[in-house]
Amino acid sequence: MDKNDMILISVDDHIIEPPDMFRNHLPAKYIADAPRLVHTDDGADVWKFREVTVPNVALNAVAGRPKHEYGLEPEGLDEIRPGCFDVHERIKDMNAGGVLASMNFPSFPGFAARLFATEDPDFSLALVRAYNDWHIDEWCGAYPGRFIPMALPVIWDARACADEVRRCADKGVHSLTFTENPAALGYPSFHDPYWNPLWQALVDTDTVCSVHIGSSGRLSVPAVDSPPDVMITLQPMNIVQAAADLLWSRPVKDYPDLKIALSEGGTGWIPYFLERVDRTFEMHSAWTTQDFGGKVPSDIFREHFLTCFISDPIGVRLRNEIGIDNISWEMDYPHSDSMWPDAPEALHEVLTQEQVPDDEIDKMTHRNAMRWYSFDPFAHIPREQATVGALRAAAAGHDVSIQARSHKVTSAQEKLGAYQSQIKAATAHTAS
Amino acid sequence: MDKNDMILISVDDHIIEPPDMFRNHLPAKYIADAPRLVHTDDGADVWKFREVTVPNVALNAVAGRPKHEYGLEPEGLDEIRPGCFDVHERIKDMNAGGVLASMNFPSFPGFAARLFATEDPDFSLALVRAYNDWHIDEWCGAYPGRFIPMALPVIWDARACADEVRRCADKGVHSLTFTENPAALGYPSFHDPYWNPLWQALVDTDTVCSVHIGSSGRLSVPAVDSPPDVMITLQPMNIVQAAADLLWSRPVKDYPDLKIALSEGGTGWIPYFLERVDRTFEMHSAWTTQDFGGKVPSDIFREHFLTCFISDPIGVRLRNEIGIDNISWEMDYPHSDSMWPDAPEALHEVLTQEQVPDDEIDKMTHRNAMRWYSFDPFAHIPREQATVGALRAAAAGHDVSIQARSHKVTSAQEKLGAYQSQIKAATAHTAS
Repeated sequence: MDKNDMILISVDDHIIEPPDMFRNHLPAKYIADAPRLVHTDDGADVWKFREVTVPNVALNAVAGRPKHEYGLEPEGLDEIRPGCFDVHERIKDMNAGGVLASMNFPSFPGFAARLFATEDPDFSLALVRAYNDWHIDEWCGAYPGRFIPMALPVIWDARACADEVRRCADKGVHSLTFTENPAALGYPSFHDPYWNPLWQALVDTDTVCSVHIGSSGRLSVPAVDSPPDVMITLQPMNIVQAAADLLWSRPVKDYPDLKIALSEGGTGWIPYFLERVDRTFEMHSAWTTQDFGGKVPSDIFREHFLTCFISDPIGVRLRNEIGIDNISWEMDYPHSDSMWPDAPEALHEVLTQEQVPDDEIDKMTHRNAMRWYSFDPFAHIPREQATVGALRAAAAGHDVSIQARSHKVTSAQEKLGAYQSQIKAATAHTAS
Repeated sequence: MDKNDMILISVDDHIIEPPDMFRNHLPAKYIADAPRLVHTDDGADVWKFREVTVPNVALNAVAGRPKHEYGLEPEGLDEIRPGCFDVHERIKDMNAGGVLASMNFPSFPGFAARLFATEDPDFSLALVRAYNDWHIDEWCGAYPGRFIPMALPVIWDARACADEVRRCADKGVHSLTFTENPAALGYPSFHDPYWNPLWQALVDTDTVCSVHIGSSGRLSVPAVDSPPDVMITLQPMNIVQAAADLLWSRPVKDYPDLKIALSEGGTGWIPYFLERVDRTFEMHSAWTTQDFGGKVPSDIFREHFLTCFISDPIGVRLRNEIGIDNISWEMDYPHSDSMWPDAPEALHEVLTQEQVPDDEIDKMTHRNAMRWYSFDPFAHIPREQATVGALRAAAAGHDVSIQARSHKVTSAQEKLGAYQSQIKAATAHTAS
């Protein structure tokens, strides 16, 4: 397949929320108490909500920067591409990256929106709903066929969460961002019947439970003085904990239509994982009483789990050991693992090297995403306008760089120091 | 290659320590205070040392049992194969399993012998030395060429540890059992120069730092009510944390001859891991200042790390993406992941299926183990007596089963209850 003929749907990108997002969607009585974006004296933008300050709104939003400017910077909206927070600019960036459609995870509330948990359930619920309405109606609604809409959960209340899933499904949403591990966040685990109303709502509405790496709140850091490369290396594969926890759980047995996406988890390690679960079943099920009704765990995995990759040559090579219907490509804009705007080139090189047939390319680049997320961009956009080549032609002349403010380009030593400080703070917070 | 012509060296098996192990090796003044094996009223054998009771000496020593008897049982030495604790019986079991030679990790002191840490450094060191002398002189010494000797570390004192490495090397030892993560045990991390004397001693003596799964003291359990299958699934791959932490560390840069084994870590996920570290290097080294002198992290991995597998078809298939000189087979006797006594059959089936050439089989089954651990069994045993076929012929008639005491075969429900109780206790202990 020619690179320009590929049709790309990315199942994992990120929004940096704009300051006015609550304005049109939160009841007036709550507006004064809503999270607000504050520009600090040192040039950062931070969200403040009650006693919490989300330290760096633009963390890791490095799309368009040269690599020596990567790090915990940038810190302000004026240092990142407007495509991070402005949907019209986002579409231009998607076009420049050759991407037809994209699913966007939240940033400042956390993947499971735990920031919105307060002592006032009505207020908290209003925040979740406002976010979802903004995301569905304003962000995704502005460009039909260009976004897979996604809802925030009500992580502190399974029944309210189920209701919100149903409410959003009525608005066309088939994806819920959730956590890799509710127990790590202080809520009942996946094994607790507490979550049954949620599983029921998900299967009733064909909604995928999308669990993103890093959503457990537990850091993948062996030691506080481990170099940042260690955490960057470990983050994707760390989702194996959620994969195992869910695969051996009761929900996948009791809800045969339950669908789970392992967002940004990578694919190359999955064949080993599937061998491991089948062997565990063979060696131990006699005493652990696991029973999948005559199936083995790898069968169950392929019925329930979508895997996602950015650039993962070994996963592409082993696509049929994973399950060709269980793999979706993603771009991870605007984070540092993304290869935007050259993602099509990077992907095409791997597909060519591994001699992937066209129908398998189509599954991994867009058809699996469409089926898992009940999403049909072609109802809005003709196929011939949806290709990498066509989208890029529409974006001709769009500038894909971003200028750092000169006073914010710190030395590598300062960047490392900032990283270690944040890890120490996060570790102290976790331990307390 | 015919199955019977394979020569098998297992780089990961386990000793269940016998009660009299300290008798010949601990100074008389310490004998009364040494750990002692106590037979409890309910039929278990437990090691007691000061305020600590190691709850189940025979935990997971299920070799020879039918699978429905797996679980946290057995609990007593009279319920396990004598080959677990009697070297003469061990040799018979190795012969029956077609295994020429074996490296044996400790059990009750913990992989890093942290149990022996006391307020009296002389006493603690005496315990480590006594264990090592027993292991080297009595256990391994009884059958030259049949065991790769291994030393316990002095985990609480890097300089004393270095001295012990040198002392044991003088006795022919080239393997040190260590921890995946000293920071998790409360000691300085791999990134602290504190350990420099140890790294120097290891490279001076060609001693491999063998880190076994589970040796960090951190459990691979997402939630306290996760089924046991989750922990069993996650344990091997969890060593990725140690692999990443060490690969990005200063020791592998400062000590080019440092050798590390990822014992029981499996192999199938390694190709993904190597892609991930190279990509992390490509995307982030400009700000993280990692520098491997013109090499990439996967090069460094192959210079420093030995990977180990029990049964891992995808790893065998990807052996050249891992590094054919970086893979050793292991049997894991007497634990529940072992396929003893049928391990040769299981291994041969995979090797045949993947059409592995003879010279690559030899590397994975014994030549890599010999080179990494500076071990030459053929100085003692002629090659023609070392094959699976020859060893099994010598073991003809050896009974490979074990009878559970009838009152100890509990129901699956009781086994699961016992598992959950131990996890809850361990979690509470970790949190405190």
